[in-house]
Amino acid sequence: MHGFQHLYIPGPTNVPDPVRQAMNIPMEDMRAPDFSDFVTRLLDDLKSVYRLKSGRVFVFPTSGTGAWEAAITNTLNAGDTVLMSRFGQFSLLWADMADRLGLNVELCEVEWGKGVPVEDYAAKLQADKDHRIRAVFCTHNETATGVTSDIAAVRRALDEAGHPALLFVDGVSSIASIEFEMEDWGVDLAVSGSQKGFMLPAGLGLLGVSDKAIEASRSATMPRCYFSFADMIAFNDTGYFPYTPATQVLRGLRVSVDMMLDAGMESVWARHARLAQGVRRAVEAWQGCSLVAAAPEWYSDTVSAIYTPDGVDARDVISTAYYKYQTSLGSGLNKLAGRVFRIGHLGSLNPVMLCAGISAAEMALRDAGAAIEPGSGVAAAQEHFRSTTPDTALAPAKAA
Amino acid sequence: MHGFQHLYIPGPTNVPDPVRQAMNIPMEDMRAPDFSDFVTRLLDDLKSVYRLKSGRVFVFPTSGTGAWEAAITNTLNAGDTVLMSRFGQFSLLWADMADRLGLNVELCEVEWGKGVPVEDYAAKLQADKDHRIRAVFCTHNETATGVTSDIAAVRRALDEAGHPALLFVDGVSSIASIEFEMEDWGVDLAVSGSQKGFMLPAGLGLLGVSDKAIEASRSATMPRCYFSFADMIAFNDTGYFPYTPATQVLRGLRVSVDMMLDAGMESVWARHARLAQGVRRAVEAWQGCSLVAAAPEWYSDTVSAIYTPDGVDARDVISTAYYKYQTSLGSGLNKLAGRVFRIGHLGSLNPVMLCAGISAAEMALRDAGAAIEPGSGVAAAQEHFRSTTPDTALAPAKAA
Amino acid sequence: MHGFQHLYIPGPTNVPDPVRQAMNIPMEDMRAPDFSDFVTRLLDDLKSVYRLKSGRVFVFPTSGTGAWEAAITNTLNAGDTVLMSRFGQFSLLWADMADRLGLNVELCEVEWGKGVPVEDYAAKLQADKDHRIRAVFCTHNETATGVTSDIAAVRRALDEAGHPALLFVDGVSSIASIEFEMEDWGVDLAVSGSQKGFMLPAGLGLLGVSDKAIEASRSATMPRCYFSFADMIAFNDTGYFPYTPATQVLRGLRVSVDMMLDAGMESVWARHARLAQGVRRAVEAWQGCSLVAAAPEWYSDTVSAIYTPDGVDARDVISTAYYKYQTSLGSGLNKLAGRVFRIGHLGSLNPVMLCAGISAAEMALRDAGAAIEPGSGVAAAQEHFRSTTPDTALAPAKAA
Amino acid sequence: MHGFQHLYIPGPTNVPDPVRQAMNIPMEDMRAPDFSDFVTRLLDDLKSVYRLKSGRVFVFPTSGTGAWEAAITNTLNAGDTVLMSRFGQFSLLWADMADRLGLNVELCEVEWGKGVPVEDYAAKLQADKDHRIRAVFCTHNETATGVTSDIAAVRRALDEAGHPALLFVDGVSSIASIEFEMEDWGVDLAVSGSQKGFMLPAGLGLLGVSDKAIEASRSATMPRCYFSFADMIAFNDTGYFPYTPATQVLRGLRVSVDMMLDAGMESVWARHARLAQGVRRAVEAWQGCSLVAAAPEWYSDTVSAIYTPDGVDARDVISTAYYKYQTSLGSGLNKLAGRVFRIGHLGSLNPVMLCAGISAAEMALRDAGAAIEPGSGVAAAQEHFRSTTPDTALAPAKAA
Repeated sequence: MHGFQHLYIPGPTNVPDPVRQAMNIPMEDMRAPDFSDFVTRLLDDLKSVYRLKSGRVFVFPTSGTGAWEAAITNTLNAGDTVLMSRFGQFSLLWADMADRLGLNVELCEVEWGKGVPVEDYAAKLQADKDHRIRAVFCTHNETATGVTSDIAAVRRALDEAGHPALLFVDGVSSIASIEFEMEDWGVDLAVSGSQKGFMLPAGLGLLGVSDKAIEASRSATMPRCYFSFADMIAFNDTGYFPYTPATQVLRGLRVSVDMMLDAGMESVWARHARLAQGVRRAVEAWQGCSLVAAAPEWYSDTVSAIYTPDGVDARDVISTAYYKYQTSLGSGLNKLAGRVFRIGHLGSLNPVMLCAGISAAEMALRDAGAAIEPGSGVAAAQEHFRSTTPDTALAPAKAA
Repeated sequence: MHGFQHLYIPGPTNVPDPVRQAMNIPMEDMRAPDFSDFVTRLLDDLKSVYRLKSGRVFVFPTSGTGAWEAAITNTLNAGDTVLMSRFGQFSLLWADMADRLGLNVELCEVEWGKGVPVEDYAAKLQADKDHRIRAVFCTHNETATGVTSDIAAVRRALDEAGHPALLFVDGVSSIASIEFEMEDWGVDLAVSGSQKGFMLPAGLGLLGVSDKAIEASRSATMPRCYFSFADMIAFNDTGYFPYTPATQVLRGLRVSVDMMLDAGMESVWARHARLAQGVRRAVEAWQGCSLVAAAPEWYSDTVSAIYTPDGVDARDVISTAYYKYQTSLGSGLNKLAGRVFRIGHLGSLNPVMLCAGISAAEMALRDAGAAIEPGSGVAAAQEHFRSTTPDTALAPAKAA
Repeated sequence: MHGFQHLYIPGPTNVPDPVRQAMNIPMEDMRAPDFSDFVTRLLDDLKSVYRLKSGRVFVFPTSGTGAWEAAITNTLNAGDTVLMSRFGQFSLLWADMADRLGLNVELCEVEWGKGVPVEDYAAKLQADKDHRIRAVFCTHNETATGVTSDIAAVRRALDEAGHPALLFVDGVSSIASIEFEMEDWGVDLAVSGSQKGFMLPAGLGLLGVSDKAIEASRSATMPRCYFSFADMIAFNDTGYFPYTPATQVLRGLRVSVDMMLDAGMESVWARHARLAQGVRRAVEAWQGCSLVAAAPEWYSDTVSAIYTPDGVDARDVISTAYYKYQTSLGSGLNKLAGRVFRIGHLGSLNPVMLCAGISAAEMALRDAGAAIEPGSGVAAAQEHFRSTTPDTALAPAKAA
Repeated sequence: MHGFQHLYIPGPTNVPDPVRQAMNIPMEDMRAPDFSDFVTRLLDDLKSVYRLKSGRVFVFPTSGTGAWEAAITNTLNAGDTVLMSRFGQFSLLWADMADRLGLNVELCEVEWGKGVPVEDYAAKLQADKDHRIRAVFCTHNETATGVTSDIAAVRRALDEAGHPALLFVDGVSSIASIEFEMEDWGVDLAVSGSQKGFMLPAGLGLLGVSDKAIEASRSATMPRCYFSFADMIAFNDTGYFPYTPATQVLRGLRVSVDMMLDAGMESVWARHARLAQGVRRAVEAWQGCSLVAAAPEWYSDTVSAIYTPDGVDARDVISTAYYKYQTSLGSGLNKLAGRVFRIGHLGSLNPVMLCAGISAAEMALRDAGAAIEPGSGVAAAQEHFRSTTPDTALAPAKAA
């Protein structure tokens, strides 16, 4: 292998060098007297990333899947009815987990390519006069299909119905990348993981929790220990953890949170929107390719799932990109296998990195038999990037 | 701060440079076609570290606490009776977890300083003719007191009683450091974590599982998803994981496993025994200090818990070591707080590193009012190390 | 800044991760008893990279410029006549150094875009019956213009003239990247630096020296201490250095040399040829752009110097690439300033990395006013890379 | 090998983790438009480390030996008379270089264990009415013997004689560690290297130069190119270098300079004095051992050269420390070989690190036959460190 491997999967994402440096450290005592200051400030700053004023953010040594489970087992009881929708592999898996954990899942099946069915949710919530529904689940960004849903609208639906259900959001591939307003949207449980917008290795599951959810956790009866909110609160309040935390990744998290808050979350979101649009321009330019996302309102700014042209096996595209072009693309999951490849465009990226990824996809598509024009996608992306560069990126001399 | 911080806690332990280098990497695709080879070989080699021929080793992105929970929720049912013993903070916490997860804990209280009460266990197992006891739990190495228990003897007790209970072992601070023979001792579930003998950052919970335990997991009814053996088996069998694994630490684990298997596990154990003896020599030399471990049969080769002389607050020792001597010592936990400090002597250490740690403890003890002789502990340790150096460490010229 | 900076200058080049890891180390004693083994093997293996059977390779803590000076001061005397040629900034600087060090430089001025004038050299050597010319200097690869010269032909000219002059070669941007046969070509002094084909940070000057050159050094009278061959030989023969070597970079050099020798030097050269051709395809596709290299026989496989279209200031291209696209391109040096930018394509690179660099150049060219077609260069490069991928890069499944 | 190698040689020294992290980077363009800001600020801050208000500091990619040569070749002419003194391997080597470079060396031979003979120098300067002596050379800290000389006194001798000679100082193992006042002492050329007090890998030669020395360089006639002040000044004035600088180490230097200036140079010197005293206390406690430094006025705060007891071969001590105790000690150089070992106590160290080094030396001494008391040296050092800890190191709680 020569040169580096190119990574365009929707997580793990590229780790910025300052974060990589911050994790290149000797181990430390997680019970040291001054470790608590570090933890207290970090947990506090995470609330700013989540745009949370009240409530808390928990950081578990786990994956996003573990944070899904933590959200459920701490706040719900076996047999509780929850409203969920399925429109991709990850919303499907979350519903599956809810079922396995003993919840009564009221499931809205949605065409893959669309997202949370707000009208259906609204109707069901209006109809649920005795508040049998204890929680409403939304996959904010369905990583398998590149579809972003409207969480603010779900909150409005809850409010208009005067419904007290908890609002669960899977923000694994949205938080720290695209607009997420936990406080304003009244989200009660918001799941994320370190290896996406946080630009870190996998290993941390993050969970934003509202005061209402914490209140609910006090009476919830599902068994849990490792993921117990109560244990975590008791220790976090003193600046420590109930068991050994993954300090190496926490030190990296400190730097990635600083990078984001220094830039401002709005700037982080704007950057992702600009990069995503470049990828979509490329897809438009590729004859026979199209997004899985059914309409612009569903377009995700963190990942694009792309149908290959008829007769072109997406698995060939992915395999060729990997072996021939040292480029990791995301695969089509579940029923999209063979028909779809994905380009992750979240985290520590810039336009030229995406031109590389688009070039790799383009070569692999052609190798796999797609009749696309060489360079067509890169050209379209380039023109987008040229015309949208933020003023702040100009050379000092030019700007003067 | 000048120079490096000295780390003598019983985990996280010092990370060897080859392991640190192996974790200084860009991220990678955990679904890449060749990632499965890496995983398959790694999981296989972990069995050699566990000395397991049948069964499996699972690697969860979690802590040792999470692995405790995985062991329980996959193989037992709410209401099951389990035999446990408490003789330190970690055996206490595991019993607490078992209780919270709905098990019926039959608890043997043991004086702190001793370990698993094999005779009591044997008697109870003999008496349990209808096999009400579903599992026997042993904390192999109680990290809080520096006490190692005799797991082989517990196995014999089970066998002599003809008892079918599962044998659970907490090997968090023993596996990969001191003798552990999972296959020979008939251990069914053996918990460990990355940040101890494996010489890695925290973040991985490792769990050795016998075929019998896997069989038990097929009918066990406690809810679990994140920690599900079934999901893990299904994916591990193909060389992948059911959710994003902590690839960075796995790459480090590859190197630490290679280091151990290249040396041979017997050599790893012998090294720990030698280092531990050096620390114990120092403790003997310190007037008024003594080990918490009640007798040599209980001495742990990975951690020593040390009573300070009467009138000397161990918290002062620890705080002075930390702030004045840049040295992290372990604290006295629970009822040992203030009376005990701990020296971790596991992982990537050598005699001169321990001389440093003993020196720091010695200075801090004197600062805290202990009337020990300056240099007395180091002198005793030095003489031990001088006389026990393995032949292989001799200079080529000298050896010839 | 987001994502990484893209580096396409002709040195320093991208450092492969295994090399980066190898330099992430604590310091070591350069007089340690086993350090000599490391040095001896490394110096020996460097001869394989240089394709040298006799002679030696020296490694000085210096830059390529220092190695130029070492070559001169060790083997020549003030007032010696040397034959040199100038056709770019680096051949110009070397001639300038020779002059400043008191040599009598017989200079062939060559049009920039061409290289060593073999016929002129041959004629002068034939005419120099009394062997007044003590040394012939050749810049193998002129980094400023992207021109490679024919060293084997210069050797033939020397041989045909029966001329005993020493053959000096500046191989800073050729050795370890493009064909270089020190033994076969009868090169006496061959200069290189760590930050080019060796894929390391700057800091080491490497110098291949023939037995004939070493012999010459025994009677040469220019003062030198730091760069003294005699001192270096005396210490290197024992496996050490006369002063503190840059051990960190030497540890990286060990890995980069292993990478090259494991692949085989022919494979290294072939890789560079393929990558270079991709860049040239892009330049051909850019309307109004052209290579400085005057004809295919002069094309360099490590760097391309590219004229911008009329009216387009190359400094704008470079500045825009840097500030707007986080991409470092090489600048036009000396009289090429403003008219030329350069793309370095040596070291640890792969096709997709070059697609990124070509994309950046393309965007910057258009921003600077060039009327090139968007994506045209990338398209041409892609098609080249698609059609030339080595079989060994194919997916196992496909290859079967 | 287990645990880390212990490094107590007088350079390379231990690299602090923040410096190590800063060197764990991708390569960069040393001609980038914003690189000049970095260089300008760095060179300026280096003057603060040198305590230089006028003049300049040059940073060459070289070793300290190269910086010695740069100092000479830029400011003196062949045949110039210089006043030097020899009292150890490094002052000897510098005198040898001066001789080889064609200077007329007027040499004062001094007993090894003492330093610059100020009275002799004063007498010679007074006698030199026609100012035949062009330069006075002083090895500030003789690394081979652990002897520090009084540079301020030499300056006074020059001033009292009204002598215009340039004052050359070898500060390789003093600058950035012990008091050095370049401006106040009127030093004209002050040599250092990256791998000592600067706590970096080897690879940079630093050279502080007074305005008077720069003036001298304008008319000096020795040939030099690589080390040319004129070239360096021309480029440094624009924020760049005349050839590729060792950017990786420069990035580390930025951090080490920040660490020193943030603490204050007085604090750096005080720290070294305290650490050195601890080592000397240990040597006093070792029966039969003694310092090479002849009297307290000569004691070096960066390195101690220690005579082993009669009959104990220092080479055995060093070899045993290395192979049996993974500890690198400095060897006895030249006529001290076999009689002396050295402990470097400069750079990134703290008391507990020195307790480790002293322990290793103690064990190796006993193994080699020395009849010292086990632990005696560590005990003495401990008591010194206990009683001298700066108030700022106290725990917040204690300090309150």
